[in-house]
Amino acid sequence: MEPVTPAPASPWTLAARTAQMNPSLIREILKLTDRPGVISFAGGLPSPATFPVAEFETACAQVLRDAPQAALQYAASEGHGPLREMVAASLPWPVAPDQVLITTGSQQGLDLAAKVLIDTDSKVLVESPTYLGALMAFAPMAPRIESLACDDQGPALDDLRAKAADARFLYLLPNFQNPTGRSLSEARRAELSAEAMRLGLPLVEDNPYGDLWFDAPPPAPLTARNPEGCLYLGSFSKVLAPGLRLGFLVAPKALYPKLLQAKQAADLHSPGFNQRVVAEVMKDGFLDRHVPAIRARYKAQRDIMLAALRRAFPADADPDTSLSWNTPAGGMFLWARLPRQMDAMRLLPHAVARGVAFVPGAPFYAGHGDARALRLSFVTASADEIERGVAALADAIAAFAHGS
Amino acid sequence: MEPVTPAPASPWTLAARTAQMNPSLIREILKLTDRPGVISFAGGLPSPATFPVAEFETACAQVLRDAPQAALQYAASEGHGPLREMVAASLPWPVAPDQVLITTGSQQGLDLAAKVLIDTDSKVLVESPTYLGALMAFAPMAPRIESLACDDQGPALDDLRAKAADARFLYLLPNFQNPTGRSLSEARRAELSAEAMRLGLPLVEDNPYGDLWFDAPPPAPLTARNPEGCLYLGSFSKVLAPGLRLGFLVAPKALYPKLLQAKQAADLHSPGFNQRVVAEVMKDGFLDRHVPAIRARYKAQRDIMLAALRRAFPADADPDTSLSWNTPAGGMFLWARLPRQMDAMRLLPHAVARGVAFVPGAPFYAGHGDARALRLSFVTASADEIERGVAALADAIAAFAHGS
Repeated sequence: MEPVTPAPASPWTLAARTAQMNPSLIREILKLTDRPGVISFAGGLPSPATFPVAEFETACAQVLRDAPQAALQYAASEGHGPLREMVAASLPWPVAPDQVLITTGSQQGLDLAAKVLIDTDSKVLVESPTYLGALMAFAPMAPRIESLACDDQGPALDDLRAKAADARFLYLLPNFQNPTGRSLSEARRAELSAEAMRLGLPLVEDNPYGDLWFDAPPPAPLTARNPEGCLYLGSFSKVLAPGLRLGFLVAPKALYPKLLQAKQAADLHSPGFNQRVVAEVMKDGFLDRHVPAIRARYKAQRDIMLAALRRAFPADADPDTSLSWNTPAGGMFLWARLPRQMDAMRLLPHAVARGVAFVPGAPFYAGHGDARALRLSFVTASADEIERGVAALADAIAAFAHGS
Repeated sequence: MEPVTPAPASPWTLAARTAQMNPSLIREILKLTDRPGVISFAGGLPSPATFPVAEFETACAQVLRDAPQAALQYAASEGHGPLREMVAASLPWPVAPDQVLITTGSQQGLDLAAKVLIDTDSKVLVESPTYLGALMAFAPMAPRIESLACDDQGPALDDLRAKAADARFLYLLPNFQNPTGRSLSEARRAELSAEAMRLGLPLVEDNPYGDLWFDAPPPAPLTARNPEGCLYLGSFSKVLAPGLRLGFLVAPKALYPKLLQAKQAADLHSPGFNQRVVAEVMKDGFLDRHVPAIRARYKAQRDIMLAALRRAFPADADPDTSLSWNTPAGGMFLWARLPRQMDAMRLLPHAVARGVAFVPGAPFYAGHGDARALRLSFVTASADEIERGVAALADAIAAFAHGS
């Protein structure tokens, strides 16, 4: 790659990597669909009704009374000790607090992983489709992304074996994946973990949605099966609130010092005040009481959307001629597929004109995307909005199919 | 550079850049010196007595009452609108709010600048010495750092002319620099700005200390003279508190979209809650009342340290045989130089044994460092501690000079 040629009269020369750093198509779509009267299934936003506002208010006051000077001063790059201990204790495999690094959202974990693990043209394996924010975080380090074929159980083992040679890592979201809502089965985890170990392939396991299960907890993270071969990323955004920008990573000893260096260089440390507020909210097992309410709410919302979809589209319809969709067992998203020869990107303006927005699925693919796919969030809109929005979506699809 | 060879049995291959990502020597020094009974002039910590704790407490409660759901939800990567407007309005040249990007501390501004402006082996010019955190932030992009010769007015023009060819930018701290406390004079700014424009050399101007002047405000930032050729970085850490991790950058149109992309990929956005709290504290001109108190405190602390140094070391001594030091006109740091053939790094353990800590100056140089230099912070220790600490430093120097 060559540096980007500056415009005449500009003294700036941009790094070559900036050619790969372009506005997220989804971000641009969200701008277009964010207008009054449009019901949005497009955003990836937790329901603000779940934010524990009163607890945050009490915790802010408590932290500023108990330790104002420490909370407002520069702090350790590793993160706030008690919060690291809570994270370590919350995970279902033996984790020492000194393996935990508090990050500025789990998005920062992806940035740090990219800096420490990716050279120019390094091969990185991802699911198909995958989290767009990860592709954006990896892009500045200029990897060569290869997508693994996936079914509704997760990545296909034969494609993993075919593509693993020289890959720096496989990035995957095991639970209620963004964008598909899909989860890896226990059997697929066991096979994938064993095969990755055999191949010497490290895993970067991103698990922001794992706590949001509906009927039964998901199987253990892949990291639990091989902690030295996995980098694990977690988030407080979906169980507390995104606006504090706090997440964490759990790293094996082979990686931790370099990730810590990258963290220090990136922003010195995540806000100490926020870390203490979250630790204050979480003490005494608050999440054990709070998260079940989020699960119940999101499950009810999913059920409302599934019911609305069943009403709008015949249950026994041919997926070539009708909308089809999956039934996520947790998380925030449902993945749907339009009838044959229908393009979600082209449908979108028609849907918005009828008052409903979604995100086309194609941008979530590192390679060639499925133009028929679309992502529907079921957690932000109200029950009534979900019903009206799905009806509007059905109208838009019917009209679009007839060329109007 | 070659990727770092993994240890046997480890599946991880580290990116080549990790060879340049090593623990900050200063961080390691701070760990050694941070023990009970040791008076520290070593840290770069604002005085916690200046943190407006009551105002933060009121603002946290206000934000969580006025806009809890927005404050705790995902938010725009650019930052909170009202805060961007306040930043734009506070700067002494015409700045549009849409040129302002809120960052996770000004340290993140350095990380984003590195991603957008530095290719492998790109030449980057820095002052001699310079802020170590900038060298750490630039390192992952593998630049070729060249230090400009500096006098007590800032970078020397002839060395700038000799080294500017093909440099991506000159990084500089114009006011009360970390580590030297030095400021660029008005004349040097004018010459440097004109010369940079003539050479087509962009500037990255880092100004975290500019508000902390003692007797008179510093001259206008270099960015004010050529906004299209400068990237300006600012911070709330020194005028409010570091523990909220908020800073900002002001970018010309040629850079803003790519910096915004890098920001989005790095951590999506800086904590919206913190941004609203800071905007709430700052409204109605709070900084106009608050910052003068910080200035008065830091000036008094500087004067106590200068008086203690004059008592401990004869005023008319030969700098070859006695400690010499500068008189910063603002900020947090004073720069001192040991007698000839004395090494600050080797002196440090003797000083700590006598109960006082400082930071050796050599690590702040990108190239060969001045082994005699040391940085003394005058803002964290109390008046009494400053006097006792300087006396202990004088004892350590005398004993070290005599080989004990």
